[in-house]
Amino acid sequence: MDYDKFIVDIPDYPEPGVIFKDVTPLIADAEGFCGMVDEIAEHFKDAGVTKIVGAEARGFLIGAPVAYRMGVGFVPARKPGKLPREVYSQEYDLEYGTDQLQIHKDAIRSGDKCLIVDDLIATGGTAVACAKLIEQAGGEVEGFAFGLELCYLNPRDVVKKDFQQEIFTIIQVH
Amino acid sequence: MDYDKFIVDIPDYPEPGVIFKDVTPLIADAEGFCGMVDEIAEHFKDAGVTKIVGAEARGFLIGAPVAYRMGVGFVPARKPGKLPREVYSQEYDLEYGTDQLQIHKDAIRSGDKCLIVDDLIATGGTAVACAKLIEQAGGEVEGFAFGLELCYLNPRDVVKKDFQQEIFTIIQVH
Repeated sequence: MDYDKFIVDIPDYPEPGVIFKDVTPLIADAEGFCGMVDEIAEHFKDAGVTKIVGAEARGFLIGAPVAYRMGVGFVPARKPGKLPREVYSQEYDLEYGTDQLQIHKDAIRSGDKCLIVDDLIATGGTAVACAKLIEQAGGEVEGFAFGLELCYLNPRDVVKKDFQQEIFTIIQVH
Repeated sequence: MDYDKFIVDIPDYPEPGVIFKDVTPLIADAEGFCGMVDEIAEHFKDAGVTKIVGAEARGFLIGAPVAYRMGVGFVPARKPGKLPREVYSQEYDLEYGTDQLQIHKDAIRSGDKCLIVDDLIATGGTAVACAKLIEQAGGEVEGFAFGLELCYLNPRDVVKKDFQQEIFTIIQVH
């Protein structure tokens, strides 16, 4: 499917010189949305995945339906202060400073095989943070899946420093 | 299914006297998560729904898979500053002060039949804001679906002031 037509470029957003990739038109289109979810789920159907992990908030938009389609549970990785019980925390770098993602300590069990799903991989920082959270919890990282990959930011180089699992993306932007 | 067993009560969170209902264990359980999504989609299967609308961020967790299951697109209602293009805005009351939700102006077309889905209905303010956003965009509100209804906060009374469409909930907490 020609998914590219659903992605809207927003020049100079959120700051001058950056081209923001807006995936909401893809999520709002039945064929584009369901097609993308199906492709990710099909690709990993024999990987023995038992949990999908997705980062707040846009990661929920694709990760949760992939979990449903694969018949497994979904674990939200959230910003500090959003999860009410005991959490694992993982810091990651932003352009300026750092941020954190957290998961509930009981969300992933030892032996869980986890697929990380997000709408987009840009610098790779969020993806690596999710993978480290899974390992903190005693789970296994089975792979990574993204709707959109900003290849010109070289996110695969960042992920590969720590994780050799497969990275599967639907749309590659060069 | 006995969904109640997956809901964890957090006393005095986020402030003293409030019992927070944590639905993340339900989302993380394959049977509970998929069962809830199926029940909502089945209930509205003959309603001619063309879009699901869900509020940031937990509304995405159930709304997006319901959209996938029904074979329609998903429209995220987000906090100000999160959507990069032209938006409709709707204010709603919080316990102290007000907040806003927004949707992209082109996310809903005239004639779209929209189902509002969220993990939980408490005061009803978010649900009404989503419904008003749909009407601003020229769409029709077909109904409301929630994983959890905090009946003791009487959210139905709030919704019914403006919207008579069906409110369907999986778990009622009295």
